[in-house]
Amino acid sequence: MARIAVTDGMADDAVSMLIEAGHEVDMGPVQLDGFDAVVIRSATKMTSQAIAAAPSLQLIGRAGVGVDNIDLNAATNAGILVCNTPGSSTQSVVELALGHLLASARHIATADRDLRSGNWTKKILKGTELSGKRLGFIGFGRIAQGVGKIAGAFGMELHAFDPYLPSHIAEEQGCLLHEDVNDVFRLCTHITIHCNLTDETHHLVNSDTLALMPGIGADGTTCGNHLVSCARGGIVNEQDALEALENGQLTSCALDVFEVEPAEDNPILQHTNFHGTPHIGAATVEAQNRIGFEMAELIIGFFNGDTPQSVVNREVLN
Amino acid sequence: MARIAVTDGMADDAVSMLIEAGHEVDMGPVQLDGFDAVVIRSATKMTSQAIAAAPSLQLIGRAGVGVDNIDLNAATNAGILVCNTPGSSTQSVVELALGHLLASARHIATADRDLRSGNWTKKILKGTELSGKRLGFIGFGRIAQGVGKIAGAFGMELHAFDPYLPSHIAEEQGCLLHEDVNDVFRLCTHITIHCNLTDETHHLVNSDTLALMPGIGADGTTCGNHLVSCARGGIVNEQDALEALENGQLTSCALDVFEVEPAEDNPILQHTNFHGTPHIGAATVEAQNRIGFEMAELIIGFFNGDTPQSVVNREVLN
Repeated sequence: MARIAVTDGMADDAVSMLIEAGHEVDMGPVQLDGFDAVVIRSATKMTSQAIAAAPSLQLIGRAGVGVDNIDLNAATNAGILVCNTPGSSTQSVVELALGHLLASARHIATADRDLRSGNWTKKILKGTELSGKRLGFIGFGRIAQGVGKIAGAFGMELHAFDPYLPSHIAEEQGCLLHEDVNDVFRLCTHITIHCNLTDETHHLVNSDTLALMPGIGADGTTCGNHLVSCARGGIVNEQDALEALENGQLTSCALDVFEVEPAEDNPILQHTNFHGTPHIGAATVEAQNRIGFEMAELIIGFFNGDTPQSVVNREVLN
Repeated sequence: MARIAVTDGMADDAVSMLIEAGHEVDMGPVQLDGFDAVVIRSATKMTSQAIAAAPSLQLIGRAGVGVDNIDLNAATNAGILVCNTPGSSTQSVVELALGHLLASARHIATADRDLRSGNWTKKILKGTELSGKRLGFIGFGRIAQGVGKIAGAFGMELHAFDPYLPSHIAEEQGCLLHEDVNDVFRLCTHITIHCNLTDETHHLVNSDTLALMPGIGADGTTCGNHLVSCARGGIVNEQDALEALENGQLTSCALDVFEVEPAEDNPILQHTNFHGTPHIGAATVEAQNRIGFEMAELIIGFFNGDTPQSVVNREVLN
């Protein structure tokens, strides 16, 4: 029997699985010392201090994908295995990113705001089609590939920058992989971010890269430039994105993720051509059920002596 | 040379085409008497009175699809040909309908409103995936088929009611055609409207039909019921839809079209789980260019003695 702390919530069925397997589950402990495992989402920050304060931990389970809220070096040095559930939220993020792309191209959030204010802005809200435009992916992993499948069906041309992806995988998805990220910005009127936040990708979307975007679609339509990120805050320089909205280089910007979350006093939130969601890429019934199920199975297996499949810091296993 | 009135606007290039072909174009005439043709969108109402007041008219060109703003009997009796541009806006409406479906499932308009108010409502805004759900089409013409192609790629199951469509056409698109419209409501958690407004379809979406919707997706997810219409106002009974939002039978409702347009004092606009757009299905640069080009070609051909392809009241030709 293991003692498991759950700090950011977990699907009920998944908690039941853990309890039925004989484990003790504490939903919202005051501190982590004495626990064998902790299940977190993105809100809990497993800093080196937090890790040092919980010497009993054997496993940090990230119910979700991104592990930028975990000090991986500190975890590895402490011999704590870090695992995530990488595939569980893919479809949910794919659908949100496409929702943002379509909502941007057709001013859906602005239109709804106008309607609620009693203004029938039909004549002002002329949009453009996604069809016939180039969509650029920064990062072309499983989420981007899912977005690409649908965007291709819309008639978009697919371009990507992903230095970690074998080019044949992009080719199989009908996507042209570029070696220089600037080429993706130069070619594409629509950019969607699907990479991790790392030193390489921090503020990769900035005034310089945004300035490269062409504003005219592959089909010759003056569609402006559109930016979507459902990846991780910090990849888009939000001040630069706001400036690009203000000077018209960006026609729209839609963000699900922010450098500082919760995003409350962020000035970009108030721009007419911005719309956003509060980091809800994986906030669906389906994704949370899949994440919970996958994490519960992983923890039960781990305390039965199995090696989890989705280990982030494999060094600990050696 | 013909005298052509344009009452609701027309793409610049299309107006130039008409002028270059030797015609006189008046953008916004006070009255229609003395004109040989009039180009309208949806705002101008060609009632029997308006038609009687313009005895010189030979052609009413509807730059768009729906002709419910034209008294077809009066036009036919007056020997006036009515033509539209049925295919030009298909892709734009397809993309808007899908944008509304995705925005509904993920609360995009609500999320943006919350963010702008300084509220980080991540925990409240749990959505559901389109994948694994049944999408019901009321009307399965070219727009619906375009939506179906993408919805199928999302992993939705397609059902339709369309008494005018040969069933093999639906089958070829992977869509099951039902003889009873109630079966579509009974099966589907997501309904999208793509029929014309006629006596048969007036208030076809009402408390009775909405009450049939299952609330639980084909995949077992409690996703609630979702309604989208980018077709024509009057097909959805808006009072009933609002009541269904209030009592929870509808989880979301997204409308681009309203019984009374401009929609300004409509109480449904203020419901949290409603979002809308001001009849912008065809309001894209691409659609307006295609519509204008198609209409200009049609008018130039007509006054050269050609028979237009897209005649709505073919009786006039006999």
